[in-house]
Amino acid sequence: MNSLDPEALGARAYAMIAELAAISAEPDRLVRLFLSAEHRRAADLVARWMHAAGLSVSEDALGTLRGSYGSARRRLLIGSHLDTVIDAGKYDGPLGVIAGILAVEVFARAKAKLSFGIDVLAFGDEEGSRFPATMASSSACAGVFDPATLQLADRDGVTLAAALRAYGKNPRDISAAAYRPQDAAAFVEVHIEQGPVLEEKGEPLGIVTGIVGQSRLRVTVRGEAGHAGTVPMHLRRDAYAGAAEMALALEKIVRTHRDDGMVGTVGCVDVRPGAVNIIPSEAVFTVDLRSLSDRLRGWAVERFEDEARRIATARGLGVTCESFHEIATAHCAPALQDLLAASVADLGHDPIRLPSGAGHDAQVMARLCPSAMLFVRCRGGISHNPAEFASVSDMGLAIAALIRFIERFDAR
Amino acid sequence: MNSLDPEALGARAYAMIAELAAISAEPDRLVRLFLSAEHRRAADLVARWMHAAGLSVSEDALGTLRGSYGSARRRLLIGSHLDTVIDAGKYDGPLGVIAGILAVEVFARAKAKLSFGIDVLAFGDEEGSRFPATMASSSACAGVFDPATLQLADRDGVTLAAALRAYGKNPRDISAAAYRPQDAAAFVEVHIEQGPVLEEKGEPLGIVTGIVGQSRLRVTVRGEAGHAGTVPMHLRRDAYAGAAEMALALEKIVRTHRDDGMVGTVGCVDVRPGAVNIIPSEAVFTVDLRSLSDRLRGWAVERFEDEARRIATARGLGVTCESFHEIATAHCAPALQDLLAASVADLGHDPIRLPSGAGHDAQVMARLCPSAMLFVRCRGGISHNPAEFASVSDMGLAIAALIRFIERFDAR
Repeated sequence: MNSLDPEALGARAYAMIAELAAISAEPDRLVRLFLSAEHRRAADLVARWMHAAGLSVSEDALGTLRGSYGSARRRLLIGSHLDTVIDAGKYDGPLGVIAGILAVEVFARAKAKLSFGIDVLAFGDEEGSRFPATMASSSACAGVFDPATLQLADRDGVTLAAALRAYGKNPRDISAAAYRPQDAAAFVEVHIEQGPVLEEKGEPLGIVTGIVGQSRLRVTVRGEAGHAGTVPMHLRRDAYAGAAEMALALEKIVRTHRDDGMVGTVGCVDVRPGAVNIIPSEAVFTVDLRSLSDRLRGWAVERFEDEARRIATARGLGVTCESFHEIATAHCAPALQDLLAASVADLGHDPIRLPSGAGHDAQVMARLCPSAMLFVRCRGGISHNPAEFASVSDMGLAIAALIRFIERFDAR
Repeated sequence: MNSLDPEALGARAYAMIAELAAISAEPDRLVRLFLSAEHRRAADLVARWMHAAGLSVSEDALGTLRGSYGSARRRLLIGSHLDTVIDAGKYDGPLGVIAGILAVEVFARAKAKLSFGIDVLAFGDEEGSRFPATMASSSACAGVFDPATLQLADRDGVTLAAALRAYGKNPRDISAAAYRPQDAAAFVEVHIEQGPVLEEKGEPLGIVTGIVGQSRLRVTVRGEAGHAGTVPMHLRRDAYAGAAEMALALEKIVRTHRDDGMVGTVGCVDVRPGAVNIIPSEAVFTVDLRSLSDRLRGWAVERFEDEARRIATARGLGVTCESFHEIATAHCAPALQDLLAASVADLGHDPIRLPSGAGHDAQVMARLCPSAMLFVRCRGGISHNPAEFASVSDMGLAIAALIRFIERFDAR
């Protein structure tokens, strides 16, 4: 049928993505924050789409919109998020929600009898752009929402609890948003890759093997300020020279494990006092280290800290490595990966397997039930940027693969 | 005589330094800017000291105070500066002016017949803390003042020309401030070392061999921003990783020339966009490279630029090295160095010879006449800081050595 033509599905998805992208807090860039007026307008639009696709619509206490098909107790969950970063691209999040609606619509139109029901979920908070916490909505669905999060405030001092009430919700109802594990058959999320791997391999779709764990460190190197002209090299304790050596040591450690998808980044560097003619007394930098293996990541962090101490000692510097963020790897369910891979192969494409280096709602949902992700190639690996782009063809293939996946999930 | 007792000379110098240090634009830190009300008060105090020491006092069009002894046309010039950095120490500058006054007082009191006259010079601008130019006062005395400097404005938009007029000067008289080369027999400056070498050697005084030339570069490394989780290491173009490697390359180049007093510093580092989870797209850093040999410094700058390009090419980065400050080495006159060394030896101390890594008025005066500097040990090499400290004994020895120097200069 025509609705299974990938180009047609992709074109419909693009039109919907463009309509959603017009809902922004600012005229010149895309900003759609959790529990904002724009979130409300976006959710209302998505609710209309769900309804038109033949789904029954509800909304939970954390603002997750749910489009349900079928009345079976066991539910296949499909979804992604509606919130954006500041100055966002339009595909990150909405594509997964829209792909779910367009895929389930095929079964709803055909009044297909499935061995499970399907819920398309449109989460309200994945990016953490408003409150200093990410994935609050999927955490509620997965039953792992931390009530302490309710007291976190946005830049204007509004707490999550107050924002929920202003949105017409009651924080007391959050526990009711959780699926019972025995009712959640699986979670599947379609998302742009946000990286360059599929483009490099020349393939439109990828099967995510897992969402990498993250370790973040704040490294403080302490030396001694001095006049850049009067202190001979052998009497210096230059904090920045030590910090630069540590950054290269990190890169070397990480590169020895490229097969494990390990990546390491020094993204923030602050050198003090920061004058052209003063030897730096202090250098503070961040380390972001990710790997699909928690064990290897732990090893790499230890190895880095050892190297940092060795470098500091050799240079007469002090060093402190402070961990400020630690997330374990979430592995995608192998059986679901295989179903997705077979569905991609059905469409004549090579089902590349790759880790996700970015965080996603699927990593939270993996705590509830077997979870999987289908990545869609995006141009230049660019994301969190207005230049973010996925082609109509690739999006259409993703939706066609999701339809095949639902069929295969029913058939197994 | 008692006035030649170094401890007594040092104690007098300290009392005068403390009195001058009380003249500040701010109650809690020492700030004395060129042509400010504090400059006026400080110059008036110094003028009273000069007068009391038996010198005749005048002031030139750039605010340099001159205390003159003897009427011979040939003048031995001794001096340093009265202006300070923001939150300064009290020795940097004033010590050289006060040492000159206390040394010449000995000859004035004795009505000594010398083969030359002596001018003690108290320059108004060495630090460049108010206007974006340094050593304006000594430049006028040396006859190398650049009239374009008059149009430079301070933070409040006041030009040097306007500030001079408000100070009661006429910019048209600046050319009259210049000594004729044939009248300037020599220039000698006593100054704290502002570095740790004399302290490390355990000697109170040092003879400066030259004031190192400086090359300053602004290095811009351009890569490509990317998600710290999703871009594999081999597909990255991380501007900061390249910048860190370049900083270490600079250090390596400089360390191969430690015997030439070469030093190199990366003092400012700016990494963009500067987020923990974004691969840096750009890194900008400064290089400050100094050496007593202009040829070697030029070689080191070229060598660094070659290395920076090699590193950038290997990493797929762009790099631009932009020179924004270039000062040639000013060599101290060997004959004057030998006279100073003999004077220090007279006092029973080892006349250490060392380069000055910092800039001084002597480097400008060297364009007028043979120039030399006597360095005084300072604690921890600390300067431009309220913790700046030179002992009464060491200051007294410096003044005693300066008195010997004047005797030897007369005797040669």
